[in-house]
Amino acid sequence: MNHPYAVAQALRRPLPDSLASALRAHFGERFSTARAVCEHHGRDESPFPVTPPDAVVYAESTDDVAAAVALCRAHKVPVIPYGAGSSLEGHLLAVQGGVSIDVSRMNAVVSINAEDLTATVQAGVTRKQLNEAIRSEGLFFPIDPGADASLGGMSATRASGTNAVRYGTMRENVLGLTVVSSDGKVLRTGSRAKKSSAGYDLTRLFVGSEGTLGVITEVTVKLYPVPEAMSAAVVNFPSLEAAVRTVIQTIQLGVPIARSEYLCENTIRAVNAASKLGLREQHTLFFEFHGSEAGVREQAETVQALAAEHGGQDFEWATRPEDRNRLWDARHKAYFSCLQVRPGCRAISTDTCVPISRLADSISGARRILDTASFPTMLLGHVGDGNFHAVALIDADDATEVAEAERLNDEIVRLALSMDGTCTGEHGVGLHKIGFLEEEAGDDALDLMRRIKRALDPDDIMNPGKIFRV
Amino acid sequence: MNHPYAVAQALRRPLPDSLASALRAHFGERFSTARAVCEHHGRDESPFPVTPPDAVVYAESTDDVAAAVALCRAHKVPVIPYGAGSSLEGHLLAVQGGVSIDVSRMNAVVSINAEDLTATVQAGVTRKQLNEAIRSEGLFFPIDPGADASLGGMSATRASGTNAVRYGTMRENVLGLTVVSSDGKVLRTGSRAKKSSAGYDLTRLFVGSEGTLGVITEVTVKLYPVPEAMSAAVVNFPSLEAAVRTVIQTIQLGVPIARSEYLCENTIRAVNAASKLGLREQHTLFFEFHGSEAGVREQAETVQALAAEHGGQDFEWATRPEDRNRLWDARHKAYFSCLQVRPGCRAISTDTCVPISRLADSISGARRILDTASFPTMLLGHVGDGNFHAVALIDADDATEVAEAERLNDEIVRLALSMDGTCTGEHGVGLHKIGFLEEEAGDDALDLMRRIKRALDPDDIMNPGKIFRV
Repeated sequence: MNHPYAVAQALRRPLPDSLASALRAHFGERFSTARAVCEHHGRDESPFPVTPPDAVVYAESTDDVAAAVALCRAHKVPVIPYGAGSSLEGHLLAVQGGVSIDVSRMNAVVSINAEDLTATVQAGVTRKQLNEAIRSEGLFFPIDPGADASLGGMSATRASGTNAVRYGTMRENVLGLTVVSSDGKVLRTGSRAKKSSAGYDLTRLFVGSEGTLGVITEVTVKLYPVPEAMSAAVVNFPSLEAAVRTVIQTIQLGVPIARSEYLCENTIRAVNAASKLGLREQHTLFFEFHGSEAGVREQAETVQALAAEHGGQDFEWATRPEDRNRLWDARHKAYFSCLQVRPGCRAISTDTCVPISRLADSISGARRILDTASFPTMLLGHVGDGNFHAVALIDADDATEVAEAERLNDEIVRLALSMDGTCTGEHGVGLHKIGFLEEEAGDDALDLMRRIKRALDPDDIMNPGKIFRV
Repeated sequence: MNHPYAVAQALRRPLPDSLASALRAHFGERFSTARAVCEHHGRDESPFPVTPPDAVVYAESTDDVAAAVALCRAHKVPVIPYGAGSSLEGHLLAVQGGVSIDVSRMNAVVSINAEDLTATVQAGVTRKQLNEAIRSEGLFFPIDPGADASLGGMSATRASGTNAVRYGTMRENVLGLTVVSSDGKVLRTGSRAKKSSAGYDLTRLFVGSEGTLGVITEVTVKLYPVPEAMSAAVVNFPSLEAAVRTVIQTIQLGVPIARSEYLCENTIRAVNAASKLGLREQHTLFFEFHGSEAGVREQAETVQALAAEHGGQDFEWATRPEDRNRLWDARHKAYFSCLQVRPGCRAISTDTCVPISRLADSISGARRILDTASFPTMLLGHVGDGNFHAVALIDADDATEVAEAERLNDEIVRLALSMDGTCTGEHGVGLHKIGFLEEEAGDDALDLMRRIKRALDPDDIMNPGKIFRV
């Protein structure tokens, strides 16, 4: 139990035979207790060890999920929703045992309402799949975490990505949800109306609830017309500060940039190696501009001028779609490219987000803290939102490295909290940030969260052990 | 009790002498049971009769609010937050008696962070006051209900207004809150970071909770740089459908219009009379464009071309700030201008919002329903969001007129609900839409709201009787 990532086994609740029989009777071959299946569902992209559920159910419909939850509720056995498995914070680990409900087969695009700029999808649809489905309508869905995550998981963690600086996060882009509550009831939140003042905002309550209040089975999201024009640019800077100050001024001027990503020299080196690119290994910003032809030109000129004032150079354009895609594909893979720098390593990543005026201090502080590390580290992120990731590549079996990484992680998060920031901009709390949430939210706000949890899930069966200690 | 707006008195809870004494001891002259004071706090802009609280406390700080709530909680006496008194749905009426906590003296702008594009204000600060305070920084706050409402009240009702089509509503623009919970504790929700995945979204839970979960005492909001260029335009159309289809196409094309308001002939007539304008008394759209000089020109040209395709004429520009202000001032006063058409009347107003593809059917249906009315009616609203108001000017003492108005109101709301819309886009539920919320949300979602209410306010003292029947 001295290992920081050790998961307490004392709280595991047994899977009663009667529940296993009932689930098998209902789901047939879509119910499994096979070790390999359970282990696959007990891991994610976090540094925590595999913590398998006792069984897995493959749901194919909202009714399947409702049936599984109702059975688990009757036996007070935990339920863990599983989408694409790309959580970075241990959300999927069965720390109290129970049944993993895999929604990856719930991958139907239920409806596309191009005229309304909305779509409704089952929870297992991934962001790339949704974008494929709407491309012919001239529409796109902007929220893009690094992984090809499921829309259910993205809703549950309030995910965002590179486009959030212009288009917002899942918080702003989910219009409504279908949710299975802890008592196995199916309910709809929200409507397809763009705005509403009709009672408590249940949609926003479930977005970011990390499976602890119910299982999201369908998601209605906003879509956007593909802009008439798009262009991307890469700029190198002599220092971290110069890059960051360029972004801060861009935001403060109100330039409607679609994307503004910082990648440190180490990240660029990793990206170059993994994606066969020849980017200069310096402090780098990737930009993207969306709008009319004239609007995009105007935005780009403004940003280029700001960058030049801060010593930005080699302002390089990517206006052809294939060049743009290659750039952003490399950016999306950056996290996985970093992992390749140290084969066999696990990454631990901060996810702080601060008010934009504190970004330079926050990220420079993080750089100074990382500079003391005995293992490879990177800095990258969505700097236009004040959100960035400090990545440490560690040997998760080496307790000394783990302890060192956690200490650096703590320092970086505390620095952000001291700046009226948050410990997590987009990854969620999961297992890893429970302590930080306590500091950030304070006892009274956390007490309110717990009261909501108890009211909606009195037996604590919905993804127990995540977000807070009940 | 046959009058639709009669308020049941049976649920009134008495104000114990011991509570009155304790409040008087704490607040001195800022505690009042004077009849005139109580009656003033028992009315709003809704058609409901005056329903006074038993006492009023003038709070000057969050601690004042906390003290008042703690005392009321100890005596299980209702608490009703009171800001500017501009609710349209009966939110402020003391239907179970109790103490009105007037926060209008909490009117300090706590901090302006121009670099972060955020401000924190006390709950009694009004939208105009905030905009005055930030003007010299080159910033503005876009949310603009018709009245000069308080930021606390706007948060509590999830308000929006004419700019929401571009800038979103209070849902998107509140970053964090200070709230006094039902047990008199002071808690902070959110942070000043632009995005966060740190636990349940308590900010969004309190936004739109209409005082039923706690008293909002401070609000941190997003601000925006005043655009480099702005222009407004007025266009007349041969029919309602032509006007609405112009807006629908504008939205579907992704033109980032800042405002797009429809006003029917009757509304224009009322506005002309009240604001001394000479607008042509036809189906009319008001537009506003924000951006760079070139961007604004480009948006306006696109919209002008779309309007022309639908028979729009007399496309008239208002580029000078004073002309623009006169136009939008008239728009903001439209509701009150309508009231002047029938002296002594009360207005009842629908507030439906539908997916944009259903807007033409929804608003034409409303027009047909209103055409049968025996009293003056108007149609106006934020059509770019799919949100509009059907206004009926009635003699609230005439039970026949009231019944007729309520019947028309019902038909218009049911039509919107049948189109996957909402009964309230921005005014909130209050007393008037409790039945509609039941239809819209369904039993299971409403049950969840009630469970949250009971968890956060077990004695049902926070603005009881609003949003739903507990």
